[in-house]
Amino acid sequence: MKNRIITISREFGSGGRTIGKKVAEDLGIPCYDKELIHKIALESGFDENYIKDAGEYVQGGFLASALSNRSFGPTNEDYLWKIQYQVITDLAEKGPCVIVGRCADYILQDKADCLKVFIHADMEFRANRIVEEYGEREESPIQRLQEKDKRRAAYHRFYTNMKWGQAKNYHIALDSGVLGIERCAGIIRNLY
Amino acid sequence: MKNRIITISREFGSGGRTIGKKVAEDLGIPCYDKELIHKIALESGFDENYIKDAGEYVQGGFLASALSNRSFGPTNEDYLWKIQYQVITDLAEKGPCVIVGRCADYILQDKADCLKVFIHADMEFRANRIVEEYGEREESPIQRLQEKDKRRAAYHRFYTNMKWGQAKNYHIALDSGVLGIERCAGIIRNLY
Repeated sequence: MKNRIITISREFGSGGRTIGKKVAEDLGIPCYDKELIHKIALESGFDENYIKDAGEYVQGGFLASALSNRSFGPTNEDYLWKIQYQVITDLAEKGPCVIVGRCADYILQDKADCLKVFIHADMEFRANRIVEEYGEREESPIQRLQEKDKRRAAYHRFYTNMKWGQAKNYHIALDSGVLGIERCAGIIRNLY
Repeated sequence: MKNRIITISREFGSGGRTIGKKVAEDLGIPCYDKELIHKIALESGFDENYIKDAGEYVQGGFLASALSNRSFGPTNEDYLWKIQYQVITDLAEKGPCVIVGRCADYILQDKADCLKVFIHADMEFRANRIVEEYGEREESPIQRLQEKDKRRAAYHRFYTNMKWGQAKNYHIALDSGVLGIERCAGIIRNLY
Protein backbone atom coordinates (compact mmCIF):
# COMPACT_ATOMS: atom_id res chain seq x y z
CA MET A 1 0.00 0.00 0.00
CA LYS A 2 1.20 3.50 -0.80
CA ASN A 3 2.12 5.79 2.06
CA ARG A 4 0.00 8.82 2.85
CA ILE A 5 2.13 11.91 2.24
CA ILE A 6 1.36 15.62 2.51
CA THR A 7 3.23 17.69 -0.08
CA ILE A 8 3.33 21.42 0.51
CA SER A 9 4.17 23.72 -2.37
CA ARG A 10 4.42 27.31 -1.29
CA GLU A 11 5.20 30.80 -2.40
CA PHE A 12 8.35 32.22 -0.88
CA GLY A 13 7.46 33.98 2.38
CA SER A 14 3.95 32.52 2.65
CA GLY A 15 4.70 30.48 5.75
CA GLY A 16 4.26 27.13 3.99
CA ARG A 17 7.24 25.66 5.80
CA THR A 18 5.91 26.71 9.22
CA ILE A 19 2.52 25.24 8.31
CA GLY A 20 4.14 21.98 7.20
CA LYS A 21 6.03 21.68 10.48
CA LYS A 22 2.92 22.33 12.58
CA VAL A 23 0.88 19.77 10.66
CA ALA A 24 3.62 17.16 10.99
CA GLU A 25 4.02 17.83 14.71
CA ASP A 26 0.29 17.50 15.32
CA LEU A 27 0.11 14.29 13.32
CA GLY A 28 3.28 12.86 14.82
CA ILE A 29 4.95 12.27 11.46
CA PRO A 30 8.25 13.66 10.15
CA CYS A 31 8.44 16.89 8.14
CA TYR A 32 11.19 16.99 5.54
CA ASP A 33 12.53 20.38 4.65
CA LYS A 34 16.06 21.13 5.87
CA GLU A 35 16.70 17.42 6.39
CA LEU A 36 15.82 16.87 2.79
CA ILE A 37 18.50 19.33 1.72
CA HIS A 38 20.96 17.56 3.99
CA LYS A 39 20.16 14.17 2.45
CA ILE A 40 20.45 15.54 -1.07
CA ALA A 41 23.82 17.06 -0.13
CA LEU A 42 25.07 13.70 1.12
CA GLU A 43 23.93 11.94 -2.06
CA SER A 44 25.06 14.54 -4.55
CA GLY A 45 28.18 16.00 -3.00
CA PHE A 46 26.81 19.49 -3.65
CA ASP A 47 26.94 22.19 -0.99
CA GLU A 48 23.72 22.66 1.03
CA ASN A 49 23.50 26.32 0.13
CA TYR A 50 23.68 25.49 -3.56
CA ILE A 51 20.98 22.81 -3.22
CA LYS A 52 18.69 25.11 -1.26
CA ASP A 53 18.46 27.46 -4.18
CA ALA A 54 19.24 25.35 -7.24
CA GLY A 55 16.77 22.60 -6.29
CA GLU A 56 13.81 24.98 -6.52
CA TYR A 57 14.84 28.04 -8.51
CA VAL A 58 16.34 28.49 -11.93
CA GLN A 59 19.93 29.74 -11.82
CA GLY A 60 21.62 32.56 -13.69
CA GLY A 61 22.37 31.41 -17.20
CA PHE A 62 19.69 28.72 -16.87
CA LEU A 63 17.65 30.00 -19.76
CA ALA A 64 20.67 30.09 -22.03
CA SER A 65 21.53 26.52 -21.11
CA ALA A 66 17.91 25.39 -21.53
CA LEU A 67 17.73 27.01 -24.95
CA SER A 68 20.97 25.46 -26.07
CA ASN A 69 19.11 22.14 -25.76
CA ARG A 70 21.59 20.79 -23.24
CA SER A 71 23.92 20.28 -26.19
CA PHE A 72 26.87 19.84 -23.85
CA GLY A 73 25.03 17.15 -21.87
CA PRO A 74 23.13 17.46 -18.57
CA THR A 75 23.78 20.49 -16.41
CA ASN A 76 24.50 20.52 -12.67
CA GLU A 77 20.84 21.38 -12.18
CA ASP A 78 19.77 18.30 -14.12
CA TYR A 79 22.04 16.14 -11.98
CA LEU A 80 20.64 17.74 -8.83
CA TRP A 81 17.08 17.14 -10.06
CA LYS A 82 17.84 13.42 -10.49
CA ILE A 83 19.25 13.09 -6.96
CA GLN A 84 16.38 15.12 -5.50
CA TYR A 85 13.91 12.89 -7.35
CA GLN A 86 15.51 9.77 -5.90
CA VAL A 87 15.81 11.06 -2.32
CA ILE A 88 12.14 12.14 -2.27
CA THR A 89 10.99 8.83 -3.74
CA ASP A 90 12.97 6.91 -1.10
CA LEU A 91 11.57 9.01 1.75
CA ALA A 92 8.02 8.46 0.56
CA GLU A 93 8.59 4.72 0.63
CA LYS A 94 9.75 4.83 4.24
CA GLY A 95 6.47 6.05 5.73
CA PRO A 96 3.91 8.83 6.06
CA CYS A 97 5.43 12.33 6.19
CA VAL A 98 5.13 15.98 5.18
CA ILE A 99 7.44 17.18 2.40
CA VAL A 100 7.87 20.90 1.83
CA GLY A 101 8.68 22.13 -1.66
CA ARG A 102 11.08 20.60 -4.18
CA CYS A 103 8.32 19.53 -6.59
CA ALA A 104 7.49 16.56 -4.34
CA ASP A 105 3.86 16.69 -5.53
CA TYR A 106 5.01 16.05 -9.08
CA ILE A 107 7.68 13.50 -8.17
CA LEU A 108 5.31 11.43 -6.03
CA GLN A 109 2.21 11.62 -8.20
CA ASP A 110 2.13 7.87 -8.90
CA LYS A 111 4.33 6.75 -6.01
CA ALA A 112 2.38 7.80 -2.93
CA ASP A 113 -1.10 8.66 -1.74
CA CYS A 114 -0.56 12.42 -1.64
CA LEU A 115 -2.58 15.26 -0.24
CA LYS A 116 -1.28 18.06 -2.46
CA VAL A 117 -1.32 21.48 -0.80
CA PHE A 118 -0.42 24.93 -2.11
CA ILE A 119 0.14 27.89 0.22
CA HIS A 120 0.16 31.44 -1.10
CA ALA A 121 -0.29 34.97 0.23
CA ASP A 122 -0.23 38.50 -1.06
CA MET A 123 2.96 40.53 -1.47
CA GLU A 124 2.52 42.60 1.67
CA PHE A 125 2.13 39.62 3.98
CA ARG A 126 5.08 37.84 2.42
CA ALA A 127 7.27 40.95 2.39
CA ASN A 128 6.76 41.42 6.13
CA ARG A 129 7.50 37.77 6.79
CA ILE A 130 10.75 37.60 4.83
CA VAL A 131 12.10 40.72 6.51
CA GLU A 132 11.24 39.21 9.90
CA GLU A 133 12.75 35.85 9.00
CA TYR A 134 15.75 36.74 6.84
CA GLY A 135 16.33 40.41 7.66
CA GLU A 136 16.75 43.41 5.37
CA ARG A 137 18.77 43.18 2.17
CA GLU A 138 19.98 45.66 -0.38
CA GLU A 139 17.05 44.79 -2.65
CA SER A 140 13.58 45.68 -1.35
CA PRO A 141 11.51 42.73 -0.07
CA ILE A 142 9.09 43.16 -2.99
CA GLN A 143 11.95 42.95 -5.49
CA ARG A 144 13.27 39.85 -3.74
CA LEU A 145 9.84 38.20 -3.85
CA GLN A 146 9.27 39.05 -7.49
CA GLU A 147 12.59 37.55 -8.46
CA LYS A 148 12.03 34.44 -6.34
CA ASP A 149 8.51 33.97 -7.76
CA LYS A 150 9.77 34.25 -11.31
CA ARG A 151 12.66 31.87 -10.81
CA ARG A 152 10.56 29.30 -8.97
CA ALA A 153 7.82 29.35 -11.61
CA ALA A 154 10.45 28.85 -14.33
CA TYR A 155 12.06 25.95 -12.45
CA HIS A 156 8.69 24.30 -11.93
CA ARG A 157 7.73 24.73 -15.54
CA PHE A 158 11.01 23.34 -16.82
CA TYR A 159 11.17 20.19 -14.70
CA THR A 160 7.47 19.37 -14.27
CA ASN A 161 5.86 21.04 -17.29
CA MET A 162 3.15 22.38 -14.97
CA LYS A 163 2.16 25.99 -14.52
CA TRP A 164 3.09 27.20 -11.06
CA GLY A 165 0.19 28.32 -8.88
CA GLN A 166 -2.66 26.78 -10.89
CA ALA A 167 -5.37 25.66 -8.44
CA LYS A 168 -6.04 22.46 -10.40
CA ASN A 169 -2.58 21.09 -9.61
CA TYR A 170 -3.47 20.86 -5.91
CA HIS A 171 -6.18 19.26 -3.80
CA ILE A 172 -6.30 22.36 -1.64
CA ALA A 173 -4.83 25.84 -2.02
CA LEU A 174 -4.90 28.29 0.87
CA ASP A 175 -4.20 31.98 1.33
CA SER A 176 -2.15 32.00 4.53
CA GLY A 177 -2.20 35.80 4.67
CA VAL A 178 -5.98 35.98 4.95
CA LEU A 179 -6.71 32.68 6.72
CA GLY A 180 -3.66 32.69 9.03
CA ILE A 181 -0.96 30.09 9.59
CA GLU A 182 -2.77 28.30 12.43
CA ARG A 183 -6.02 27.93 10.56
CA CYS A 184 -4.27 26.65 7.43
CA ALA A 185 -2.46 24.03 9.51
CA GLY A 186 -5.75 23.01 11.13
CA ILE A 187 -7.55 22.54 7.81
CA ILE A 188 -4.74 20.39 6.40
CA ARG A 189 -4.49 18.30 9.56
CA ASN A 190 -8.23 17.63 9.51
CA LEU A 191 -8.11 16.60 5.86
CA TYR A 192 -5.29 14.12 6.31
CA MET B 1 -19.93 47.59 7.94
CA LYS B 2 -19.50 45.40 4.90
CA ASN B 3 -21.51 42.20 4.68
CA ARG B 4 -19.80 38.84 4.88
CA ILE B 5 -20.28 37.09 1.52
CA ILE B 6 -19.07 33.74 0.21
CA THR B 7 -18.31 33.83 -3.52
CA ILE B 8 -17.95 30.48 -5.24
CA SER B 9 -16.20 30.32 -8.58
CA ARG B 10 -16.29 26.85 -10.06
CA GLU B 11 -15.35 24.76 -13.02
CA PHE B 12 -18.32 23.50 -14.97
CA GLY B 13 -19.39 20.12 -13.53
CA SER B 14 -17.31 20.40 -10.35
CA GLY B 15 -20.32 20.58 -8.03
CA GLY B 16 -19.61 24.15 -6.96
CA ARG B 17 -23.28 25.06 -7.11
CA THR B 18 -24.27 22.11 -4.92
CA ILE B 19 -21.53 23.04 -2.45
CA GLY B 20 -22.73 26.65 -2.39
CA LYS B 21 -26.29 25.58 -1.63
CA LYS B 22 -25.22 23.24 1.18
CA VAL B 23 -23.06 25.91 2.80
CA ALA B 24 -25.85 28.47 2.59
CA GLU B 25 -28.40 26.04 4.03
CA ASP B 26 -26.13 25.15 6.94
CA LEU B 27 -25.42 28.80 7.66
CA GLY B 28 -29.04 29.88 7.20
CA ILE B 29 -28.20 32.52 4.60
CA PRO B 30 -29.47 32.81 1.02
CA CYS B 31 -27.63 31.27 -1.93
CA TYR B 32 -27.92 33.16 -5.19
CA ASP B 33 -27.58 31.16 -8.36
CA LYS B 34 -30.78 30.69 -10.37
CA GLU B 35 -32.41 33.57 -8.51
CA LEU B 36 -29.56 35.74 -9.63
CA ILE B 37 -30.29 34.90 -13.25
CA HIS B 38 -33.94 35.68 -12.65
CA LYS B 39 -33.12 39.08 -11.17
CA ILE B 40 -30.77 39.90 -14.02
CA ALA B 41 -33.50 38.89 -16.49
CA LEU B 42 -35.95 41.28 -14.83
CA GLU B 43 -33.47 44.15 -14.91
CA SER B 44 -32.13 43.59 -18.39
CA GLY B 45 -35.09 42.25 -20.33
CA PHE B 46 -32.88 39.45 -21.66
CA ASP B 47 -34.08 35.84 -21.70
CA GLU B 48 -32.91 33.69 -18.76
CA ASN B 49 -31.36 31.11 -21.07
CA TYR B 50 -29.32 33.81 -22.77
CA ILE B 51 -28.15 35.21 -19.43
CA LYS B 52 -27.21 31.79 -18.09
CA ASP B 53 -24.65 31.38 -20.80
CA ALA B 54 -23.71 34.90 -21.85
CA GLY B 55 -23.12 36.09 -18.28
CA GLU B 56 -20.28 33.62 -17.75
CA TYR B 57 -19.07 32.41 -21.13
CA VAL B 58 -17.87 34.22 -24.22
CA GLN B 59 -20.29 33.92 -27.13
CA GLY B 60 -19.69 33.00 -30.75
CA GLY B 61 -18.25 35.99 -32.55
CA PHE B 62 -17.09 37.40 -29.21
CA LEU B 63 -13.45 37.44 -30.14
CA ALA B 64 -14.17 39.25 -33.40
CA SER B 65 -16.19 41.88 -31.55
CA ALA B 66 -13.51 42.20 -28.84
CA LEU B 67 -10.82 42.66 -31.45
CA SER B 68 -12.81 45.27 -33.32
CA ASN B 69 -12.36 47.39 -30.19
CA ARG B 70 -16.10 47.70 -29.67
CA SER B 71 -16.02 50.21 -32.52
CA PHE B 72 -19.79 49.97 -32.94
CA GLY B 73 -20.34 50.69 -29.23
CA PRO B 74 -20.99 48.26 -26.37
CA THR B 75 -22.23 44.77 -27.23
CA ASN B 76 -25.14 42.90 -25.67
CA GLU B 77 -22.58 41.13 -23.49
CA ASP B 78 -21.24 44.45 -22.23
CA TYR B 79 -24.75 45.58 -21.36
CA LEU B 80 -25.41 42.27 -19.58
CA TRP B 81 -22.15 42.65 -17.65
CA LYS B 82 -23.26 46.07 -16.40
CA ILE B 83 -26.63 44.79 -15.19
CA GLN B 84 -25.02 41.72 -13.62
CA TYR B 85 -22.51 43.97 -11.86
CA GLN B 86 -25.31 46.11 -10.43
CA VAL B 87 -27.54 43.22 -9.35
CA ILE B 88 -24.66 41.50 -7.53
CA THR B 89 -23.60 44.74 -5.85
CA ASP B 90 -27.18 45.33 -4.64
CA LEU B 91 -27.52 41.80 -3.29
CA ALA B 92 -24.27 42.10 -1.36
CA GLU B 93 -25.56 45.25 0.27
CA LYS B 94 -28.73 43.50 1.46
CA GLY B 95 -27.01 40.98 3.74
CA PRO B 96 -24.72 37.96 4.12
CA CYS B 97 -25.15 35.37 1.35
CA VAL B 98 -23.49 32.86 -0.94
CA ILE B 99 -23.12 33.86 -4.61
CA VAL B 100 -22.23 31.21 -7.17
CA GLY B 101 -20.29 32.23 -10.27
CA ARG B 102 -20.77 35.37 -12.39
CA CYS B 103 -17.43 36.92 -11.37
CA ALA B 104 -18.93 37.96 -8.02
CA ASP B 105 -15.48 37.68 -6.40
CA TYR B 106 -14.18 40.34 -8.75
CA ILE B 107 -17.29 42.53 -8.63
CA LEU B 108 -17.39 42.57 -4.82
CA GLN B 109 -13.68 42.90 -4.11
CA ASP B 110 -14.01 46.31 -2.47
CA LYS B 111 -17.72 46.18 -1.71
CA ALA B 112 -18.05 43.25 0.69
CA ASP B 113 -16.07 41.16 3.14
CA CYS B 114 -15.70 38.15 0.85
CA LEU B 115 -14.49 34.63 1.42
CA LYS B 116 -13.39 33.80 -2.12
CA VAL B 117 -13.68 30.10 -2.99
CA PHE B 118 -12.72 28.18 -6.13
CA ILE B 119 -13.98 24.64 -6.77
CA HIS B 120 -12.37 22.44 -9.40
CA ALA B 121 -12.11 18.74 -10.24
CA ASP B 122 -10.54 16.56 -12.87
CA MET B 123 -12.16 15.82 -16.22
CA GLU B 124 -13.42 12.36 -15.32
CA PHE B 125 -15.27 13.49 -12.21
CA ARG B 126 -16.81 16.43 -14.03
CA ALA B 127 -17.71 14.37 -17.12
CA ASN B 128 -19.65 11.88 -14.97
CA ARG B 129 -21.42 14.67 -13.14
CA ILE B 130 -22.57 16.58 -16.23
CA VAL B 131 -23.95 13.43 -17.83
CA GLU B 132 -25.83 12.69 -14.60
CA GLU B 133 -27.12 16.22 -14.29
CA TYR B 134 -27.71 17.33 -17.88
CA GLY B 135 -27.86 14.00 -19.77
CA GLU B 136 -26.01 12.86 -22.89
CA ARG B 137 -25.49 15.21 -25.83
CA GLU B 138 -24.17 14.79 -29.32
CA GLU B 139 -20.76 16.07 -28.22
CA SER B 140 -18.86 13.89 -25.74
CA PRO B 141 -18.83 15.17 -22.13
CA ILE B 142 -15.08 15.83 -22.41
CA GLN B 143 -15.61 17.97 -25.51
CA ARG B 144 -18.40 19.85 -23.76
CA LEU B 145 -16.18 20.50 -20.74
CA GLN B 146 -13.22 21.63 -22.82
CA GLU B 147 -15.36 24.10 -24.70
CA LYS B 148 -17.00 25.40 -21.52
CA ASP B 149 -13.62 25.77 -19.77
CA LYS B 150 -12.19 27.69 -22.69
CA ARG B 151 -15.16 30.02 -23.03
CA ARG B 152 -15.38 30.67 -19.29
CA ALA B 153 -11.66 31.44 -19.01
CA ALA B 154 -11.92 33.87 -21.92
CA TYR B 155 -14.96 35.58 -20.38
CA HIS B 156 -13.21 35.92 -17.05
CA ARG B 157 -10.07 37.27 -18.65
CA PHE B 158 -11.95 39.82 -20.73
CA TYR B 159 -14.13 41.29 -17.99
CA THR B 160 -11.88 40.93 -14.93
CA ASN B 161 -8.39 40.82 -16.44
CA MET B 162 -7.60 37.88 -14.13
CA LYS B 163 -6.39 34.47 -15.17
CA TRP B 164 -9.03 31.84 -14.51
CA GLY B 165 -8.07 29.12 -12.04
CA GLN B 166 -5.02 30.82 -10.48
CA ALA B 167 -4.86 29.85 -6.80
CA LYS B 168 -3.81 33.35 -5.75
CA ASN B 169 -7.16 34.81 -6.82
CA TYR B 170 -8.95 32.85 -4.09
CA HIS B 171 -8.69 32.44 -0.34
CA ILE B 172 -9.31 28.74 -0.72
CA ALA B 173 -9.36 26.41 -3.71
CA LEU B 174 -10.64 22.85 -3.37
CA ASP B 175 -10.62 19.74 -5.54
CA SER B 176 -14.18 18.48 -5.09
CA GLY B 177 -13.41 15.28 -7.01
CA VAL B 178 -10.77 14.16 -4.50
CA LEU B 179 -12.12 15.76 -1.32
CA GLY B 180 -15.83 15.19 -2.01
CA ILE B 181 -18.75 17.62 -2.08
CA GLU B 182 -19.65 17.19 1.60
CA ARG B 183 -16.15 17.75 2.87
CA CYS B 184 -15.68 20.85 0.71
CA ALA B 185 -18.93 22.29 2.08
CA GLY B 186 -17.79 21.54 5.63
CA ILE B 187 -14.44 23.30 5.21
CA ILE B 188 -16.07 26.42 3.75
CA ARG B 189 -18.74 26.51 6.44
CA ASN B 190 -16.13 26.26 9.18
CA LEU B 191 -14.09 29.06 7.63
CA TYR B 192 -17.00 31.47 7.38
